[in-house]
Amino acid sequence: MSQLFSQSLKVVNAGLNSFAANVQQAGGTVQPLNWQPPVQGDVAAGLDLAQLLRHPLVERANQQAFQRYLDAQPALVDVLPASEAIPAMAGRKLILHAGPPIAWGEMCGPVQGAIIGAMLFEGWAESHEAALRLVRDGAVELQPCHHYHAVGPMAGIISPSMPLWVVENQANGQRSFSNMNEGLGKVLRFGANSPEVLQRLHWMRQELAPALRAGVRILGPLELKPLMAQALHMGDEVHNRNAAATGLLLKRLVPALLSSGLPLDQLQRVCAFMANNDHFFLNLSMAACKAMMDAAANVPFSSMVTVMARNGVNFGIRLSGTGDTWFQIWVTARLPKLRE
Amino acid sequence: MSQLFSQSLKVVNAGLNSFAANVQQAGGTVQPLNWQPPVQGDVAAGLDLAQLLRHPLVERANQQAFQRYLDAQPALVDVLPASEAIPAMAGRKLILHAGPPIAWGEMCGPVQGAIIGAMLFEGWAESHEAALRLVRDGAVELQPCHHYHAVGPMAGIISPSMPLWVVENQANGQRSFSNMNEGLGKVLRFGANSPEVLQRLHWMRQELAPALRAGVRILGPLELKPLMAQALHMGDEVHNRNAAATGLLLKRLVPALLSSGLPLDQLQRVCAFMANNDHFFLNLSMAACKAMMDAAANVPFSSMVTVMARNGVNFGIRLSGTGDTWFQIWVTARLPKLRE
Repeated sequence: MSQLFSQSLKVVNAGLNSFAANVQQAGGTVQPLNWQPPVQGDVAAGLDLAQLLRHPLVERANQQAFQRYLDAQPALVDVLPASEAIPAMAGRKLILHAGPPIAWGEMCGPVQGAIIGAMLFEGWAESHEAALRLVRDGAVELQPCHHYHAVGPMAGIISPSMPLWVVENQANGQRSFSNMNEGLGKVLRFGANSPEVLQRLHWMRQELAPALRAGVRILGPLELKPLMAQALHMGDEVHNRNAAATGLLLKRLVPALLSSGLPLDQLQRVCAFMANNDHFFLNLSMAACKAMMDAAANVPFSSMVTVMARNGVNFGIRLSGTGDTWFQIWVTARLPKLRE
Repeated sequence: MSQLFSQSLKVVNAGLNSFAANVQQAGGTVQPLNWQPPVQGDVAAGLDLAQLLRHPLVERANQQAFQRYLDAQPALVDVLPASEAIPAMAGRKLILHAGPPIAWGEMCGPVQGAIIGAMLFEGWAESHEAALRLVRDGAVELQPCHHYHAVGPMAGIISPSMPLWVVENQANGQRSFSNMNEGLGKVLRFGANSPEVLQRLHWMRQELAPALRAGVRILGPLELKPLMAQALHMGDEVHNRNAAATGLLLKRLVPALLSSGLPLDQLQRVCAFMANNDHFFLNLSMAACKAMMDAAANVPFSSMVTVMARNGVNFGIRLSGTGDTWFQIWVTARLPKLRE
């Protein structure tokens, strides 16, 4: 049948896939489109929705929110313990986690494991079992990072004494926060909580963070957009490829660290830790992006999505105009629970 | 006239440009080709040349030379004073320069200026005038870097006490050498020889080189091909863009330097010097390329070009099969001479 066509066909097929098969048999190329009418086919509700999306109030609000996002100038300004960076964490057994709110019993195993690890790290319990009892008894508060301008990779666990990158949007003074990258292998962010994981976290709190704080304070505010822009040109996407950004950060940080007056053996361990982890910049890019997205938040009537986050069970978004409300639009296949 | 063509024309025009103009007027696209018959139109000589180029001996020799080039594994193995790296320089007033051989009187101003600077740096003369008299009197030997497996950017000046990168082709044990990058601004490689230029060279000899030697010896042989390959993927061309390669080198060198036992204040200055010069890797890539090209040299009958170099006046090449012979195929418009 292909001779019927005077030239090769490229077809978009919206609807039943069997229509696509016919075109393919006849020698055409088909791009199937998984489409369904909006609002499950409720025409009146669909027209209402369309009206809302193109409403002048919404359009103006979105332009304003997007402009605030573009105007954001995230700069690395400090390194602080979480309880200082986020005063609400001081003196409380509060642990922050990735994604939208979720109760302990609903959490996936890796997030639960990371929370147990953070409790052991904080000294709130002496053993895995004791920590488990405490958290089951409700003695530990669990809240999303996003409720405190914070982010963290994977499980995203932040406990009060963990050191945080402090990023400030120099356009509005708002600060955002992220924990620090532990490297690859067994790490808290994937739910590991063995002694080697906790030992590394202790070292990061005791040696890495004070050195970075000293270095960052010597550097002064370090604008992150130009650094990330250069890294993007160098092949990073600043998520899973951070080799260039980490190198550019090191070029700035190392001379500052060396003039910090800290002991040479500490600087050796700190520089080796950073130089051996191409992902070291990741958490800083997350905090920078958080600062930029938070700049767009809370513009009345704006439908701009300012948060997309998951906790291993639920995926949620927040819109600028609806403030702190979470919309949980997906429930994923659940990861295995913590073995008990 | 364009309606005469059933489709748009794309024409290659070899010969008089006026033919091209006609096609352009008629709506066609022309790529002019600046072509002339080989050997100035001597048909017999042209055929001889063609025979030679496709001679089985030449073809086999070229394959062998090219394979040696591909097999080369340049590794940074040491940092040494030129007089140790190149024993022929010890105890002689010998200065190496860029490009093919050239007498003092024929040299361009920047190369002459850099030679005067190197003589002052070596302490062979107390003043610019005294240095000029010495070199005019023939008291200083001037030879190409390429005669000693060495390279250097721009004027390419190497004098006996300058520190050199030592790169070894681990496939054949042959070493190649380059001086070190001074950064931007007033620098010897562009012919500057003012006190600030000489002061920097003294610092590089006294502080930078010993630190790099210590760091390189701690690191052990550092293979340069993988590092350069990664830098190429990160947007460097490892000539005028070396930001990625310099960063990758720093990631390796800094931890080694910090464990060298050298004084912290020296390490501060050394790390700051490297971190502030995105071109720092350049000279190392030059030495690595020299090692790879030298691997292909001296294969009898090979017509592979193993050296292309200029000294500001002449441009010369060397072929593998013709060994040390220079073919000077271009005389450039001359740069201004040194003011006297």
